[in-house]
Amino acid sequence: MKKYLKIYNIIKSQIENKELAAGQKILSVRKAAKLYNVSITTIQNAYFELCADGYIISQSKSGYYVTSTAENNTINTEPEEKDSIIYNFTGGIADRDSFDLKLWQRYIKSALRQGDRMLSYSSPQGEYDLRCAISDYIKEKRNVVASPDRIIVGAGVTALLNIICTLLDKSSIISFPDNSFETGIGLFRDYGYDVRTRYKDADVIYVSPSHMTRWGDVMPIKRRVELTEYSCKKGSIVIEDDYENEFLYNVRPTPSLYALGKGNVIYMSSFSAMLIPAIRISFMVLTPELYDIYKTKMHRLAQTASKTEQIALCSYIRDGHLNSQTKKVRRLYSAKTKDFAKILKNKLPNSKIEIGDNTLQIILSAEISKSPDIFESMGIKVHIEKFENKMITLVISPSGIPFDELENAAELLKKAIV
Amino acid sequence: MKKYLKIYNIIKSQIENKELAAGQKILSVRKAAKLYNVSITTIQNAYFELCADGYIISQSKSGYYVTSTAENNTINTEPEEKDSIIYNFTGGIADRDSFDLKLWQRYIKSALRQGDRMLSYSSPQGEYDLRCAISDYIKEKRNVVASPDRIIVGAGVTALLNIICTLLDKSSIISFPDNSFETGIGLFRDYGYDVRTRYKDADVIYVSPSHMTRWGDVMPIKRRVELTEYSCKKGSIVIEDDYENEFLYNVRPTPSLYALGKGNVIYMSSFSAMLIPAIRISFMVLTPELYDIYKTKMHRLAQTASKTEQIALCSYIRDGHLNSQTKKVRRLYSAKTKDFAKILKNKLPNSKIEIGDNTLQIILSAEISKSPDIFESMGIKVHIEKFENKMITLVISPSGIPFDELENAAELLKKAIV
Repeated sequence: MKKYLKIYNIIKSQIENKELAAGQKILSVRKAAKLYNVSITTIQNAYFELCADGYIISQSKSGYYVTSTAENNTINTEPEEKDSIIYNFTGGIADRDSFDLKLWQRYIKSALRQGDRMLSYSSPQGEYDLRCAISDYIKEKRNVVASPDRIIVGAGVTALLNIICTLLDKSSIISFPDNSFETGIGLFRDYGYDVRTRYKDADVIYVSPSHMTRWGDVMPIKRRVELTEYSCKKGSIVIEDDYENEFLYNVRPTPSLYALGKGNVIYMSSFSAMLIPAIRISFMVLTPELYDIYKTKMHRLAQTASKTEQIALCSYIRDGHLNSQTKKVRRLYSAKTKDFAKILKNKLPNSKIEIGDNTLQIILSAEISKSPDIFESMGIKVHIEKFENKMITLVISPSGIPFDELENAAELLKKAIV
Repeated sequence: MKKYLKIYNIIKSQIENKELAAGQKILSVRKAAKLYNVSITTIQNAYFELCADGYIISQSKSGYYVTSTAENNTINTEPEEKDSIIYNFTGGIADRDSFDLKLWQRYIKSALRQGDRMLSYSSPQGEYDLRCAISDYIKEKRNVVASPDRIIVGAGVTALLNIICTLLDKSSIISFPDNSFETGIGLFRDYGYDVRTRYKDADVIYVSPSHMTRWGDVMPIKRRVELTEYSCKKGSIVIEDDYENEFLYNVRPTPSLYALGKGNVIYMSSFSAMLIPAIRISFMVLTPELYDIYKTKMHRLAQTASKTEQIALCSYIRDGHLNSQTKKVRRLYSAKTKDFAKILKNKLPNSKIEIGDNTLQIILSAEISKSPDIFESMGIKVHIEKFENKMITLVISPSGIPFDELENAAELLKKAIV
């Protein structure tokens, strides 16, 4: 076989095996010649052939790129998925007016100016000054009194649960309220724990009292007192994920389990929902016993949250911005949910529309003649809670839809349902 | 008991129990009055008493803060530890001239300007464009040909090993070269795996071929070929942590195990060492089999690396800065190690001084009359490899010591040893 055909075949099979993806730049002629130890002319011939067969294209002054037509059989899911979704109602997306990115930029800039701090790794436990700021903040907001020493920072609740998994006794039974928090349940199972749902006599009980169901039901105070008292007596640990607590708008603010408990509650919360998802910083307060175990294992646990973002967040909190941001976000999302519920009621007068306790989710029940696949095929990403006898129940979170698109988004939902 | 004394006792015990740490701001008089449901005068009296007894101090216009004297018995380790270390020779600290923070700031700024991308969480697998840039980079640098689809990004090697732990068969036997990588070994053990050292017939073999020992020995090419051939035959997976590969200066560049293997190697590398520790982004290329398992579990794994930093790093790589940064860092640290070895030879003519393969570490063996505790008590943080019959062997990494302090650092080491 001619040399250039050999090269042709190598690269062709790399493209066909998806090792080279559509849009990727391939090696320059000079570099490829060096790599395969052949002449530049050989490579040029191979590339010409690949261009002719549609595997790559040449872009002047830039180089050669893999074409998308060459990738008919690839599963390049991500860029595609993005394109096919028109409206995403599954939450976890922030409104673009909810957060002052320019202000945040200033804090990041000033964090990066602290050159010397950038030169070392962040403490496994998180930056000390951020933990002080968090300690102050949760004392004031949630009556959670905890020394910065017992606070542990991580990139997201999963990263924190990962740490808890390394601290517990391996024979512990873990209880979750239901099967919806797949990430948490899967994690504990991967570590070999016995995970059950609604198991009263578990050693560890995970709850998110401000988001008990997918539509944001809140645990009543009476139940909170019962849970902490029972678990105290039993000697079990409660993991309180204070998820979406800040959004409680319709109901009276409820006390944290941590404040009610007697030292057996791990308090856990995240800043992503208050700020933007891209800032992934969460924290937890360990129980004194678990913190003692943590100290012995700390040297082999690594910090996951960005050091720059930790430093920036510390000043952001200290300067009072988290406070005002929380108020702003709560007002904005609550108004949006109400607006959207109103629009939906107009468009779908025969459906049942309710707003969840924490005013972030809408529960819509309606008759549907089509298959539930219709939503996906129409570019709608939404959680289907129930589908039975042509009745469908959807949990709709409009937070990521801009205000001026609410009308269009509701229209598309209507078209899918009616 | 008078009301104000009750409040006094509550706060005093919070300080004594270390729930309120030195330097922390306590609640304002107005807020405390609201919280405890007492008059402002009552709180003021309590605070005056606490001031008088030295528990808190008042700072005009700012509020009340817990004093450090009140915390005699606290274990506020971190700020203290920082103060007591004068020179840290354990590595993991960057030279302040090694990285252009201003340039990085520009990339961060431009990433934050991509407002819409900031509004959603990063993909569990990492940002797609960063994975494309990494795919191009490792193909060129290490001959690691892998589609962006098989690349997974995470905040540090530990975060990536965590993912691997969720993908493997639970009965797998994992082999590490020795006991030094505590983080990795502890993690696999926490997941319940059988971890052994230098176990030939393991199902998974972890190696860092460019940093085989604490002083940076490099795995010779012959051994690399043997390892990949043997593991292929056996059907075992090799985790290749390409740690410090970029620093190989004295030895010929060695091929990656991934390039030598036949699809059974997980290639893993980190950008922290090349950039600065504060930028914690690592990645791995999964084997096709493990990637298929990953896809089924992906939806419940969360991304840990900062989204902003991922976007910034992508452009940074695309613009060629990682290339030049690598060259700069290698030159700088290699020169520093050589300089420091020379200075040490002058100061300690009777000791044996060698430089490790990857020119980042110095191995120093010398006679010592004092106890090895002397280093810590003199503010020196250094790894003691061996201490026997008054002979000590140290592994010294001078990377974090500024050039103009090398002389002083060597002098302090001399004082500790002689």
